[in-house]
Amino acid sequence: MNTSDMTTAPDLKSWVESANAADNEFPIQNLPFGRFRRDSNSDWLIGVAIGDQVLDLRKAKLIDTIDMNHLMASTSDERRRLRLAISEGLRHGSAQQAAFASALVPQDQVELGLPCQIGDYTDFYTGIHHATTVGKLFRPDNPLMPNYKWVPIGYHGRASSIGASGQQFHRPRGQTKGPDDPAPSLGPSRRMDYELELGIFVARQNALGDPVTMEQAEEHVFGLALLNDWSARDIQAWEYQPLGPFLAKNFATTVSPWIVTMEALAPFRIPFQRPAGDPAPLPYLDSALNRAAGGIDIKLEVWLQTEAMQKSKLAPQLLTTSNYSDAYWTVAQLIAHHTVNGCNLQSGDLLGSGTLSGAAADQGGSLLELTLGGKQALTLSNGEKRTFLEDGDTVILRGYCEKPGARRIGFGECRGTLQGVRK
Amino acid sequence: MNTSDMTTAPDLKSWVESANAADNEFPIQNLPFGRFRRDSNSDWLIGVAIGDQVLDLRKAKLIDTIDMNHLMASTSDERRRLRLAISEGLRHGSAQQAAFASALVPQDQVELGLPCQIGDYTDFYTGIHHATTVGKLFRPDNPLMPNYKWVPIGYHGRASSIGASGQQFHRPRGQTKGPDDPAPSLGPSRRMDYELELGIFVARQNALGDPVTMEQAEEHVFGLALLNDWSARDIQAWEYQPLGPFLAKNFATTVSPWIVTMEALAPFRIPFQRPAGDPAPLPYLDSALNRAAGGIDIKLEVWLQTEAMQKSKLAPQLLTTSNYSDAYWTVAQLIAHHTVNGCNLQSGDLLGSGTLSGAAADQGGSLLELTLGGKQALTLSNGEKRTFLEDGDTVILRGYCEKPGARRIGFGECRGTLQGVRK
Repeated sequence: MNTSDMTTAPDLKSWVESANAADNEFPIQNLPFGRFRRDSNSDWLIGVAIGDQVLDLRKAKLIDTIDMNHLMASTSDERRRLRLAISEGLRHGSAQQAAFASALVPQDQVELGLPCQIGDYTDFYTGIHHATTVGKLFRPDNPLMPNYKWVPIGYHGRASSIGASGQQFHRPRGQTKGPDDPAPSLGPSRRMDYELELGIFVARQNALGDPVTMEQAEEHVFGLALLNDWSARDIQAWEYQPLGPFLAKNFATTVSPWIVTMEALAPFRIPFQRPAGDPAPLPYLDSALNRAAGGIDIKLEVWLQTEAMQKSKLAPQLLTTSNYSDAYWTVAQLIAHHTVNGCNLQSGDLLGSGTLSGAAADQGGSLLELTLGGKQALTLSNGEKRTFLEDGDTVILRGYCEKPGARRIGFGECRGTLQGVRK
Repeated sequence: MNTSDMTTAPDLKSWVESANAADNEFPIQNLPFGRFRRDSNSDWLIGVAIGDQVLDLRKAKLIDTIDMNHLMASTSDERRRLRLAISEGLRHGSAQQAAFASALVPQDQVELGLPCQIGDYTDFYTGIHHATTVGKLFRPDNPLMPNYKWVPIGYHGRASSIGASGQQFHRPRGQTKGPDDPAPSLGPSRRMDYELELGIFVARQNALGDPVTMEQAEEHVFGLALLNDWSARDIQAWEYQPLGPFLAKNFATTVSPWIVTMEALAPFRIPFQRPAGDPAPLPYLDSALNRAAGGIDIKLEVWLQTEAMQKSKLAPQLLTTSNYSDAYWTVAQLIAHHTVNGCNLQSGDLLGSGTLSGAAADQGGSLLELTLGGKQALTLSNGEKRTFLEDGDTVILRGYCEKPGARRIGFGECRGTLQGVRK
């Protein structure tokens, strides 16, 4: 059953009028899932964003659970049926309008949490422009490793320190060593950075020992959210060999509250192809469907609001734009690769895309790229300069899909603030 | 309150007679914690091993939870009081003998599971002999990275594929590329290996942003178990740069069922000192207590039983012995380092020590070391040869503490079997 055409048709309107505004990110064609609560003593509940409201799915009698991970473990048919039921109930003229209306809560009256409980978190490295630029900084002679075009490079990250949008965290301390220092020392990171990523949430699990093929892969994906993989570059440079990043990353990771489902993204699927001359993916990472529509056209943005901007009531400033279509590996390829050895992905697990930079110099998805490793400061609109993040800086990631003939949908925002060192 | 002296006194005897046999690993001085169930439809229950029995702690009215992670989150005083109550009830002449006796189950009548729910799993690299030997194989010119003696190197591992002793798993497939191959290919790993490690289970959590000092570190440790970090060396060699091991490790990791507590290990604490000429640890990784007693004298063994041995009813063969005292970083240093950036460790989280090899060539904690990267086969007692693991091989890790004036305690076993590729 393919309900995408029905639920993403551009002429669909909702009786929730805010959802019909052209600039609203959560029209009836989107219907992203998240968790909300009215106060910090209440349970997290499962909701779907519609306009400026949240639909409480249990109150609307669409589900009887408050366990998002359980819901994510449904079959893809079950998920599509639920989406269709939500869409039908929210449409203009729905007989369920009164019942659903009593299950709406204004978004600005709730707290939005992590969309689910995240068991394991894996971070990939699919942004080839990022990998190349950063590779040059760390390894001038050897920017892109020989395995890059063959292996979707990934590594395990820390689940416990992942927070929902709005996360505030202290500047981490760690060991660093300058090239001329005789010995390392402990101190606050001086090269704090963000990374613009997408997060991929796992739907149905695969059993341990049971690889997922390219053909099955997207049945195991619930949807996508924005992800900021905060990084301490000076800690990373000293610690990362030979086993990879560790304390440079695991102090905080921020995700946006709404999971935009694969069904909502269906109109924005695009062909996936390698640049001419690049090797074809090995057969376990290839499929006709992936070549035809493995990519997703998602426009991405990084915004910065410094403490001084906030005090002067200046709006955040756009730093970067890029597009997920530049990723070197697709969502399906990440799932197929991650499980080819039998590794079990569980409902609610999170995969990071890796930093999604564009090809142009001003499309870096991190300050490391935009400032050439801190060598060339950015001048902000209020005259402030940045090589890396300063205390009080708020970074906001945004993402949206739009194209002629489709209703624009958005991801909401992924916002996080770097605070000073904890005293 | 320090109850260690009372509960580890060598003359203590239990009315559970099997616990008093000199070769039993679970005398009343040990009292390790684990989870057991009578059949696969029952809940996991919390038990303590005593002789050949398990004491059901809830049935003995010592606790009212079946949630081990909740129990692990107790304060260290609470944990010590519980240990004392268990010890007193199991001692010769205890008034509680009848009540406790009804809460005993023979170990051979229960299934032993993972001791707790593992949220995040971090693997360290504290075996300097392992790091040096393996470093030579991967990087002949540069075996030990410049950071090794400064940074307790660690990386995040996969929690979902960690299994309890008895775990059986299929030989993983993965990408490999020989030095002369024009391109990589997908196939079953041909260089399957084990790694002899200890696992460190986290007790009380620290809040995100709140580092744990060296002085506080062991309050956050519940105890230790054996850990086998199965590794596919050929997959590792091709995938691991620049972000570390991933599919080479995350298909399976096996831990022993019993967590031997820090209280039980107290008699076996030893001074921790660096080899002469090595740099002193940075202050955040140093403490007087750590220098005086940061080490633990735990004797470790690797045993191998091939399928042919099993068919011929031949006992497993001892491959290696080593000692945890050779580790380059202590348990407290791993906790202090992991949290220095504010990373939050949660109750039940698992830290691997890294492969614990001894200094001698025959003390390698992996086949990679014992066979010089597969160049020199081991000849087993029945004439079979091994460079890496073959299908049907069972690897058994064992560990124990003994010294004059203390009762010998053991860790039980960590057993796992490599099966053939899944058809």
